Amino acid sequence: MTEHRAPYAPAAMERLLRPASVALVGASANPRSLGGRTLANLAKFPGRLFLVNPNQTHIDGRPCFADVASIPELVDCAVLAIPAQKTEEVVRQCAQARVGAVVVLASGYAETGTVEGLAAQTRLLQLAVAADMRLVGPNCVGVANMVHGLHAAFAEFPPSDPVPGCRIGLVSQSGALGLGLAQAAERGSSFSHVLTCGNSSDVDVADLVAFLGHEPACDAIALAFEGLESPGRLRQALIQVTRLGKRVALCKVGTSDAGRSAIRYHTATNPGGASQLDELRALPGVAVVERIEALIETAAFQAKAPPVRAGGVAVLSGSGGTGILAVDAAARAGVPTPQPRAGTFLALAAALPEFASPRNPCDATAQATRNPESVLACAEALLGDPDYAALVIPWGRSQTPALLPKIGDLGRRHAKPVCIVWMSQLLETDATACIERHPSLALFRSLDHCFQALAAWRSSGGTGPAISR
Amino acid sequence: MTEHRAPYAPAAMERLLRPASVALVGASANPRSLGGRTLANLAKFPGRLFLVNPNQTHIDGRPCFADVASIPELVDCAVLAIPAQKTEEVVRQCAQARVGAVVVLASGYAETGTVEGLAAQTRLLQLAVAADMRLVGPNCVGVANMVHGLHAAFAEFPPSDPVPGCRIGLVSQSGALGLGLAQAAERGSSFSHVLTCGNSSDVDVADLVAFLGHEPACDAIALAFEGLESPGRLRQALIQVTRLGKRVALCKVGTSDAGRSAIRYHTATNPGGASQLDELRALPGVAVVERIEALIETAAFQAKAPPVRAGGVAVLSGSGGTGILAVDAAARAGVPTPQPRAGTFLALAAALPEFASPRNPCDATAQATRNPESVLACAEALLGDPDYAALVIPWGRSQTPALLPKIGDLGRRHAKPVCIVWMSQLLETDATACIERHPSLALFRSLDHCFQALAAWRSSGGTGPAISR
Repeated sequence: MTEHRAPYAPAAMERLLRPASVALVGASANPRSLGGRTLANLAKFPGRLFLVNPNQTHIDGRPCFADVASIPELVDCAVLAIPAQKTEEVVRQCAQARVGAVVVLASGYAETGTVEGLAAQTRLLQLAVAADMRLVGPNCVGVANMVHGLHAAFAEFPPSDPVPGCRIGLVSQSGALGLGLAQAAERGSSFSHVLTCGNSSDVDVADLVAFLGHEPACDAIALAFEGLESPGRLRQALIQVTRLGKRVALCKVGTSDAGRSAIRYHTATNPGGASQLDELRALPGVAVVERIEALIETAAFQAKAPPVRAGGVAVLSGSGGTGILAVDAAARAGVPTPQPRAGTFLALAAALPEFASPRNPCDATAQATRNPESVLACAEALLGDPDYAALVIPWGRSQTPALLPKIGDLGRRHAKPVCIVWMSQLLETDATACIERHPSLALFRSLDHCFQALAAWRSSGGTGPAISR
Repeated sequence: MTEHRAPYAPAAMERLLRPASVALVGASANPRSLGGRTLANLAKFPGRLFLVNPNQTHIDGRPCFADVASIPELVDCAVLAIPAQKTEEVVRQCAQARVGAVVVLASGYAETGTVEGLAAQTRLLQLAVAADMRLVGPNCVGVANMVHGLHAAFAEFPPSDPVPGCRIGLVSQSGALGLGLAQAAERGSSFSHVLTCGNSSDVDVADLVAFLGHEPACDAIALAFEGLESPGRLRQALIQVTRLGKRVALCKVGTSDAGRSAIRYHTATNPGGASQLDELRALPGVAVVERIEALIETAAFQAKAPPVRAGGVAVLSGSGGTGILAVDAAARAGVPTPQPRAGTFLALAAALPEFASPRNPCDATAQATRNPESVLACAEALLGDPDYAALVIPWGRSQTPALLPKIGDLGRRHAKPVCIVWMSQLLETDATACIERHPSLALFRSLDHCFQALAAWRSSGGTGPAISR
């Protein structure tokens, strides 16, 4: 029924995602209950928080209101941590109280596949539409705007200390998937927002993406979605946000026949076809990742990468083997790795011992561990070569971590992306966290994911509006 | 020159890799020097360790010998932690002293690309061949036999507590790459051996693979190599070890044109062609991985997987989205995910609430977190269905980790592999380490790597000798 509307304008999402006041309906003193878990997450909200529970006078020293109507001021956003059978009445009360938005956590709606569930969801939507009140869910985990201090969800998204230039706005239809992706924060990734929409009866992924386009604290958008109920609206949202200078990495769940068939049994939404996905892929600034595991690293790369420029990619390694693996992955992704210009060759040769390889891939050899300055000199030479648009460094754990910020500074000065590919099977260390949080160094734990991200970045140049950042 | 010889027989490798006595030439009291680092690694060797350094009488309280000839007993293996210019003379002394094998750590040989380097390497080889003495290297990191307590390397391979049924024998031509792969031990992977051979003048990857075929403590072999100087010998070794019941995961470095060209500048070995790799891929029990990041997880799967049987793969998830992503990955890998038989369907339906999906993928939904018994009942039903040869479980971090060993027990009872695919972006936790160390649960951090490993496992059935385990 909402097929043809445009994505909601930022003003229409303001009370939902940047509320001044929040009401938690179903607040509970039991920390393991739905209401208790949501209260714990909302406790740090810097605006005005009102608890609603007719059976309590106080929780944790905070007064409880009997219902939303009793709250003495206008509520922007109400979070409904109550069972489905009580939800419709509370949504009606919220509409009457001119609440700006409701987040419905309860399950038991269209996702059950029953007529009753679909009918109940439709009634919620009708109440919200009639009151011009946004509705997130039902059957959703909730939303978090880290920049605003809003954590309106029953699941705990890990705390994220958003680093400017690194901040990912994550949008996920599925709550479970979004939760798994958001856990990248625990290894150093920065999130500005984690927004899930579950059954998407009113607010859907297109609306959430469109909202992020206007969020200055969001540097790039990561999107995972399953249904393509409104492919036109999603396309419109992606065009809007990329014109506003945001890059997007997206992963479509259900691209195979078996996957599309399973979607019909899961959310009964329209799984969409390959051609619809190809339309999204063709948008400049949009990278479609096939593997969910690549989504967050690709979005982090997009947050950090400077504007696209023409040229191939240089590889600088501390071991011959990893350099060769890198150009193998470049070939698979269709990314050229040309040989350096004569001047670059001479600069590399001057920086390296005779047994190293002043080529592309440039193998600084194990001497790089004892002579880190040679790595910096090679990085400077390769980044200074106008034939190279980006630098990839497969990183061995014995290499000197203190070099990393210096290499990042070189990348920033040359306005070219520098990708560090982690070649140790120990995937989480102090060094990886440091790279995740560096605005001029992109971290990948897979050579293929790195070169696929670079391929998408390169293909974004020239075919559409310039990325203005 | 060694193109046509067969892989060395186990007896010919015994003194190298299961020595009773080891001499460290170039032992040093300086813990940061080559000799000091190697000494630290060899210090726990349970056999007899002799230190050789003409300039010292004692190091750390141990007596030093002036040269190998002064050692009062026959030395099985000498580790040469000395510069290239001193190496040839010491190799000659080792040959005269009837040492069984030398490990040459020094660089400055064929890898320099110089005539002098190649000539010096050839002289080392001639000395070794004439004395029937094995030579590892030059330009290598060394070898470690964890089961034997031998750590004859200058780089520190992380300690591994090998768990029976999970133990990987790692063979890597490149030391740097091998070191990065061996760091999987720090997140719970089990290694029985880490064997590198650098320039491979005498002992090469084929010999090391063949040795592992006879090692009862090695459950599967992981192999990374660059040159295909002796493709016939490698093929012969792979046939030998798979007939002995070992499965092998291998990754060829340099499969693209750019990669093959870089090999010529790196080790100047024969990069081999796609057809030679395809010959290896066709061997039953051998899985060729394209991505180095998949090598260790694939080998661990092979170590744990029971004999191949016919059938498709069942997927059991705690969220609809991850189940759909799994069948998408299965489709990419060409692995069928058929629907359950009627009896299985009924068993799933009995175990699950109405809104869950008793199909394949089976979506136990978020209720699985509150009702872990339903997950066990579904796993039992799916593993009991003769149409399924294996079970894949995309695992959310909110799922109950205590279930994992119980699911592993079900897999063992049905003699079918159970693969857990980690769907959180936090990649290293207590739960992942627990899965790595469970002999009936294979862990993957990528859906594609999981289904590619299952595809290789399935294709190993029927086309060759049965895997006897």
